[in-house]
Amino acid sequence: MHGIVLFAHGARDPEWARPFEGIRDRIRVRRPEFPVELAFLDFMTPKLDEAVDTLVGKGVAAITIFPLFMAPGGHIRNDLPRIAEELRKSHPGVPIAIQTAIGESPELLEAIAGWILDGVD
Amino acid sequence: MHGIVLFAHGARDPEWARPFEGIRDRIRVRRPEFPVELAFLDFMTPKLDEAVDTLVGKGVAAITIFPLFMAPGGHIRNDLPRIAEELRKSHPGVPIAIQTAIGESPELLEAIAGWILDGVD
Repeated sequence: MHGIVLFAHGARDPEWARPFEGIRDRIRVRRPEFPVELAFLDFMTPKLDEAVDTLVGKGVAAITIFPLFMAPGGHIRNDLPRIAEELRKSHPGVPIAIQTAIGESPELLEAIAGWILDGVD
Repeated sequence: MHGIVLFAHGARDPEWARPFEGIRDRIRVRRPEFPVELAFLDFMTPKLDEAVDTLVGKGVAAITIFPLFMAPGGHIRNDLPRIAEELRKSHPGVPIAIQTAIGESPELLEAIAGWILDGVD
């Protein structure tokens, strides 16, 4: 069983989390066999360690963290690998992988370009 | 002729702009008749007023600003409407519309959920 963490920046306004909740809910509907949890870097909870603890508590054999950031900045290049390294030490039996940012996926850049063109056509 | 501004946060690392350049280039290839410019809130140039000036200089009849943010926080709720209001005063003949954030598009949330599931399957 593979666990998914959707990792977002966080903000003071609780409404800010809506898009990430929307992605989580879509994953749960489409593939309920994948446990999926949100996690936030700042301002919001759960934090990454809590989300990973939840997934490990559900018995996942591996975890992939998806950074839901448009572009890879300092949070993804510096903060996330550091936190992930600590998590790997706490959970040596569960491989923890980190995916690329959204804007590093050619498929999603194509989808965003298409959405923009639909908006002006 | 309708002009497009792709509005992103900006960062100190020039590499950070790559995803937005990728979206711009895809739009230019798919629909070269739409003039499209990047604009950044902070750290990077051009700023929004420069991008709008460039499009107006190309003779666009209207402009749509697409905020390439995953979720609508203070930058989109407060900064962007304030800047857009100033731009409308400077360019009264060119309607300037603001689109929703990426994470407010159900179609893009679906695409992101699909990309995540492809990454763990």
